[in-house]
Amino acid sequence: MPIIIRKDTGAVRHLTLNAPDRLNPLSDAMLAALQAEFVALMDDRSIRAVILSGAGKAFCAGHDLKEMTAGRAATDGGAAYFKDLFDRCAAMMQTLPRLPQPVIAQVHGIATAAGCQLVASCDLAIAATGTRFGVNGVNIGLFCSTPMVALSRNIPRKQAFEMLTTGAFIDAARAAELGLINRVVASEDLEAETLALAQTISAKLGSAVTLGKQAFYEQIQMPLDRAYAFTGDVMVKNMLEHDTEEGIAAFLGKRSPEWSQS
Amino acid sequence: MPIIIRKDTGAVRHLTLNAPDRLNPLSDAMLAALQAEFVALMDDRSIRAVILSGAGKAFCAGHDLKEMTAGRAATDGGAAYFKDLFDRCAAMMQTLPRLPQPVIAQVHGIATAAGCQLVASCDLAIAATGTRFGVNGVNIGLFCSTPMVALSRNIPRKQAFEMLTTGAFIDAARAAELGLINRVVASEDLEAETLALAQTISAKLGSAVTLGKQAFYEQIQMPLDRAYAFTGDVMVKNMLEHDTEEGIAAFLGKRSPEWSQS
Amino acid sequence: MPIIIRKDTGAVRHLTLNAPDRLNPLSDAMLAALQAEFVALMDDRSIRAVILSGAGKAFCAGHDLKEMTAGRAATDGGAAYFKDLFDRCAAMMQTLPRLPQPVIAQVHGIATAAGCQLVASCDLAIAATGTRFGVNGVNIGLFCSTPMVALSRNIPRKQAFEMLTTGAFIDAARAAELGLINRVVASEDLEAETLALAQTISAKLGSAVTLGKQAFYEQIQMPLDRAYAFTGDVMVKNMLEHDTEEGIAAFLGKRSPEWSQS
Repeated sequence: MPIIIRKDTGAVRHLTLNAPDRLNPLSDAMLAALQAEFVALMDDRSIRAVILSGAGKAFCAGHDLKEMTAGRAATDGGAAYFKDLFDRCAAMMQTLPRLPQPVIAQVHGIATAAGCQLVASCDLAIAATGTRFGVNGVNIGLFCSTPMVALSRNIPRKQAFEMLTTGAFIDAARAAELGLINRVVASEDLEAETLALAQTISAKLGSAVTLGKQAFYEQIQMPLDRAYAFTGDVMVKNMLEHDTEEGIAAFLGKRSPEWSQS
Repeated sequence: MPIIIRKDTGAVRHLTLNAPDRLNPLSDAMLAALQAEFVALMDDRSIRAVILSGAGKAFCAGHDLKEMTAGRAATDGGAAYFKDLFDRCAAMMQTLPRLPQPVIAQVHGIATAAGCQLVASCDLAIAATGTRFGVNGVNIGLFCSTPMVALSRNIPRKQAFEMLTTGAFIDAARAAELGLINRVVASEDLEAETLALAQTISAKLGSAVTLGKQAFYEQIQMPLDRAYAFTGDVMVKNMLEHDTEEGIAAFLGKRSPEWSQS
Repeated sequence: MPIIIRKDTGAVRHLTLNAPDRLNPLSDAMLAALQAEFVALMDDRSIRAVILSGAGKAFCAGHDLKEMTAGRAATDGGAAYFKDLFDRCAAMMQTLPRLPQPVIAQVHGIATAAGCQLVASCDLAIAATGTRFGVNGVNIGLFCSTPMVALSRNIPRKQAFEMLTTGAFIDAARAAELGLINRVVASEDLEAETLALAQTISAKLGSAVTLGKQAFYEQIQMPLDRAYAFTGDVMVKNMLEHDTEEGIAAFLGKRSPEWSQS
């Protein structure tokens, strides 16, 4: 079995982390496979939305502690390997906001440490009732310093700090309340609801979604005046697309748009 | 009828977008009229708070798509016009936090696209039950890239991203929950509640409110140490005002302050 | 009686503001005593968590208005004194995130103006039912410009703006909802619940908590790519600690860790 299962439903790509016996850890192989999938998506305009899920009982339990421990055998005690590992993991996490397609985390079971970071790094997330989220590395003496980069950009700081220093889990309802996920659904509805959200987005004009997604993460880091100068140019570019002209004309004419993009 | 109706209730200025048959779009004329009203407020110390509302069935439905479409007739397909339009709109939106008076959006019906951006750009907002908010440009192929600048500085990012890519509306209760507005009131109480909030603010020492409002948006974009250095100076300036000396003396003396500012 | 009461419960330090007849104002003496306590904590690895509380009926009512008023007697009307006062206060507030130990505000009664800022500046906060929070300086003509630095980094901006310009109080439940505090507990449980949280944190590997806390506030001000580069290095450093190696080995071996840190 491949470490990532790839399946398409129309314009929606499903990527399923597939190492269920170990709760889908972000091993070297998993990181490489994820990055390869993301690179393939970069230029694939036929795919309009991506769903990221985990096989078996959980979404993802974070880094592969056995593999990391084996890395200590190197003459430097693992220093070079760890540096490279966190670089590769951070590169993968930062590829998510750069993908042209919105990515939805479909979360169940647990999402812990770097697994929680993966949820926070996706554009959107839906979780099943009963899912538990945690950045619990502190319990074994490894503070979730990289996961907190994504987490603290999703939820308020005192709530992030509490999760990080206590290692306590929050449930899906609390995750939705804090902003870590978009909503909670019953377990039996998780796949259908996530697919419905992906299909809603897939039905939009793909070029506009891509332009908008990329601008979203750029502008959010800018001061207000630069953010407006930047997005103003994005709006002009968007307006000059033929399909957008058609979309607006169709709206004014009270008819459905006929877009050149399939 | 003027495109903006101006009315004063004591020190409170009401500005009502008045193109109700078209849901008060931000046309060239509307943008110019708003900007002119804001410029007039810049040096008007008799006005202590501003209420922004919309005539008819809605607050504001965003840009004027007919006018924008007409702009395509230019030899450059509208490029120069669109650039200028988004510049003017961004300038207007950025004037709101620079006004010396707090501005409250009084929202009913719908606030969509740049209309939702207008709500997000005001300092405060109260909405009637039943109001719907959306950044739904994606539905016609025009991603709400400029509205998202204001929106993503009001609500958490996954929730903003969902609104932007699905075009879905949220109701007033959800808008309050997310932080886009301050609260929801019954339709019949909207005017009175908004006026009461404006009057509460108007009764404060105007120079302190102005100093504070301007510092609010400056410091929020600074790193912590610079924010403290900056606001420390603002506090000193505030302390040295005669009316503040009187305000503190009155508080310590358990009496009402006698402020020189009417 | 000392102006700050110091008491240790194991590795937890309790610091209690002790000027109850004046609602524990941040007078010159109180600021100096707090700063001295914090400096002592900087190199004290035996203390793993700090609880900050107020004696008497309230947590803290902000600056000492009588002392500030007395400062006006100087030939410059108090300008130099005020500048120095806000500098010292800002230095104290900024020492909190730099402390190696997490600091929990244990809040009851009222936390107003710089007292509310103190809650916002702590890493964590638990409040008793009935506690009221406000940045109400605007009521006496002194806008809470320095408190808003901390407040606006804890809660959404429209909600912060409303508190600042209306001077209105929010209750503990609302403070929890907005993110200003972690949770509300019954008055009679406040001490026990706060201590339990402190002890939960104290039981973690201290060096990991310290490394993580310091990284938390650094990374939160960085753009995403720099935040990842920075925290990646923190993770490597954390991985190379002997106690972390033991923590991970213990976890993989399904046993309790034997940490060298007491």
